[in-house]
Amino acid sequence: MGNVIVKEIYKSPEEYSGKTIEVSGWVRTIRASKSFGFMEINDGSFFKNIQVVFEDKLSNFKEVSKFIISSTVYIEGEFVLTPDAKQPFEIHASKVELLGKSNNDYPLQKKRHTLEYLRTIAHLRPRSNTFSAVFRVRSLAAYAIHKFFQDRDFVYVNTPLLTASDAEGAGEMFQVTTLDLNNVPKNEEGGIDYSKDFFGKKTNLTVSGQLSAETFALAFRDVYTFGPTFRAENSNTARHAAEFWMIEPEMAFAELKDYMDVAEAMVKYIINYVMEKAPEEMEFFNKFIDKGLFERLHNVVSNDFGRVTYTEAVDILKKSGEQFEYPVEWGIDLQTEHERYLTEKVFKKPIFVTDYPKDIKAFYMRMNEDNKTVAAADLLVPGIGEIIGGSQREERLDVLEHRMEELGLKKEDYWWYLELRKYGETKHSGYGLGFERMIMYLTGMSNIRDVIPFPRTTGSAEF
Amino acid sequence: MGNVIVKEIYKSPEEYSGKTIEVSGWVRTIRASKSFGFMEINDGSFFKNIQVVFEDKLSNFKEVSKFIISSTVYIEGEFVLTPDAKQPFEIHASKVELLGKSNNDYPLQKKRHTLEYLRTIAHLRPRSNTFSAVFRVRSLAAYAIHKFFQDRDFVYVNTPLLTASDAEGAGEMFQVTTLDLNNVPKNEEGGIDYSKDFFGKKTNLTVSGQLSAETFALAFRDVYTFGPTFRAENSNTARHAAEFWMIEPEMAFAELKDYMDVAEAMVKYIINYVMEKAPEEMEFFNKFIDKGLFERLHNVVSNDFGRVTYTEAVDILKKSGEQFEYPVEWGIDLQTEHERYLTEKVFKKPIFVTDYPKDIKAFYMRMNEDNKTVAAADLLVPGIGEIIGGSQREERLDVLEHRMEELGLKKEDYWWYLELRKYGETKHSGYGLGFERMIMYLTGMSNIRDVIPFPRTTGSAEF
Repeated sequence: MGNVIVKEIYKSPEEYSGKTIEVSGWVRTIRASKSFGFMEINDGSFFKNIQVVFEDKLSNFKEVSKFIISSTVYIEGEFVLTPDAKQPFEIHASKVELLGKSNNDYPLQKKRHTLEYLRTIAHLRPRSNTFSAVFRVRSLAAYAIHKFFQDRDFVYVNTPLLTASDAEGAGEMFQVTTLDLNNVPKNEEGGIDYSKDFFGKKTNLTVSGQLSAETFALAFRDVYTFGPTFRAENSNTARHAAEFWMIEPEMAFAELKDYMDVAEAMVKYIINYVMEKAPEEMEFFNKFIDKGLFERLHNVVSNDFGRVTYTEAVDILKKSGEQFEYPVEWGIDLQTEHERYLTEKVFKKPIFVTDYPKDIKAFYMRMNEDNKTVAAADLLVPGIGEIIGGSQREERLDVLEHRMEELGLKKEDYWWYLELRKYGETKHSGYGLGFERMIMYLTGMSNIRDVIPFPRTTGSAEF
Repeated sequence: MGNVIVKEIYKSPEEYSGKTIEVSGWVRTIRASKSFGFMEINDGSFFKNIQVVFEDKLSNFKEVSKFIISSTVYIEGEFVLTPDAKQPFEIHASKVELLGKSNNDYPLQKKRHTLEYLRTIAHLRPRSNTFSAVFRVRSLAAYAIHKFFQDRDFVYVNTPLLTASDAEGAGEMFQVTTLDLNNVPKNEEGGIDYSKDFFGKKTNLTVSGQLSAETFALAFRDVYTFGPTFRAENSNTARHAAEFWMIEPEMAFAELKDYMDVAEAMVKYIINYVMEKAPEEMEFFNKFIDKGLFERLHNVVSNDFGRVTYTEAVDILKKSGEQFEYPVEWGIDLQTEHERYLTEKVFKKPIFVTDYPKDIKAFYMRMNEDNKTVAAADLLVPGIGEIIGGSQREERLDVLEHRMEELGLKKEDYWWYLELRKYGETKHSGYGLGFERMIMYLTGMSNIRDVIPFPRTTGSAEF
């Protein structure tokens, strides 16, 4: 019946019972005695392996017995249901062929490896259970996000990564150039002659697609980005990477409340989608990576997220009697310890903290009537802290210009952004979700390096 | 009944008949006499506008009459079906409010603008019919691609954009750095001291995710990338951008034929999906942008794609009697004129040209038994020429190493790529689709700058 995909077999094993089937895949485990042996084959389509029994009636039994882990094999044999065994079914091989040999120095032997070691073989680690699960969940979560927004008629917009605007202000940037660094061209004033660079001016990698996304929201109403973002920050933590993916939805005619509704629905949708589509992988995480995972995710999908103002949150923290490393006063930026205390100890579920002091938030956030706080909201989740940041955007040209002056931002650098307020200003809101943070949250993996196929961090751009 | 989305109204206008509805949107056209007027409102959710009739019984009739195009408005009024009129329905306004004013110097007035001019107002052009249609189709096509692969259980993999491998060989690269270009640090030999750079070595923006994707195909069987790619080529054409998006599927256990089957199914799927989901936009393109569009797309979805070897194709071209600018000989790289002749004049449908001479193809393509050609195939389509390039990959370590030596490639640079052939080598194939080429093909737009929200090309990184 031609090659069968292992995923299909697991869907309805009964269909294959008693039939001769063909499977191609990679040897995950093998053990053999003098007259028979067992192999577990993974064909990449599914988290679980399929067991193959082979016996000395095979003409190449001796050769097969010596197959090395990770060899590529072709199996033909009878498919047998085994209701009384550990595995649900197996193949009784009538033919075993070596399609591609492996070597004895294969670096991913059966014994348990540290995550640190596995990072040094990032080209092989997706063949391990942990990373097979992580990267399949990553793929499903990405699709869940697209599906969530497309089902709601949001337009997907690819905002540019190369930007000549030096003024995004969300973090340290990488410079992109085609100039010869051995011989940087100078202009008459002795500065760098960027007219010789590829774009004729200094160019960086973007730290956010939000401002560009706003231009599209004022044409298409509801839009979202989903693409790579960069930070050249020299921070060697488990939560920061130099290259990561962001989702930035932007909605015209939406107020702060509307953003929170959409973000809450999105988070629940992603969790439900992945739980449904990758039950084996999620089971694995809950068992081996983070024993509280299911409880935590269940708590998220089954509760309405709380909403509390920053001012209320600060009051709660001050009255808590808790000793924090960073003392709490109105006006401070909440630290992870504060965020986790609020969501884990006080509310015991995800919460939006709203209406932050303007001085700790970005220039484009809408000023509240108190003239002290802005219509911003961060989503805090148990176990992590902040996972989403968003706001209503300042649509009033005069207020926005005033705020930019206060902060010393040059209007020329933002001419097109300001024009959105000149030609049909529109109330609108949006938010940003760090995709890798979401994957860490979904899987219980605690280092961002372990949810990115080939992570880029300070001092490390291997592979 | 709260704000209604125009897209919803167009789905089932009957439901709203006789009811009072509320709509918020932007004024696309307005004309008024002394006692009544008409506005067309677009709310971003849908390609088409909704007509609003307003009369002097409105207390602010005079003010409304002077609304400027692109103003943001709120309308309340009776929804009326108008079976005898040009538009299918209209709103008889009982209330019109100005939510956000526009200005008389709004650069996107009703008169027709050139595409070149519209590029200078890329922040506003999605509000025009043409770009509203282009970018909604772009969004739908992106989703169609994800859906096509996810429905087939392909794993989506985000390959890195920052790469320290200087050796990808697919085109000119941008350098990424945090060094101070005014004061580039030097090492003892007088070269650039890259140990001071962010990643501790020279780093570029990737030109392809394929080699990384192969590592995942040998774990997950079927994978695909969909992300940005960069070329620092100084070519000022209508078909090249410095930043563009690529789809790169990679399939283990797949031969050249299998890649062609998947690519053909994918192209047809994208076309059918967009035709179904954006009939109004596609109608617009067929009417105003490219009058042969529907005929061309229909031809693609309803024919089996042809398959012809490079050697046969060269014979056909040589015997054609056609005068080509570039003379045809076995061994040349086919030019667009040759490609279009084959697909438009000879086969009159999309064709795969297979088995190209090894010397004009990349090192990783699988050597055929003749030792002269490789198992590569390009998809040529009428009206454009090449739209997809792919191949079976060389899985045989000795053959691959031999080929790399011939081409002077350093094995150390590819150690992890070579290890895929050492630990369970597996037949596999893959291809690359330039996303923007596909959008140009779907829409009839002839300049790549007009299918990218904020295009980056030589000398231009505006916005």
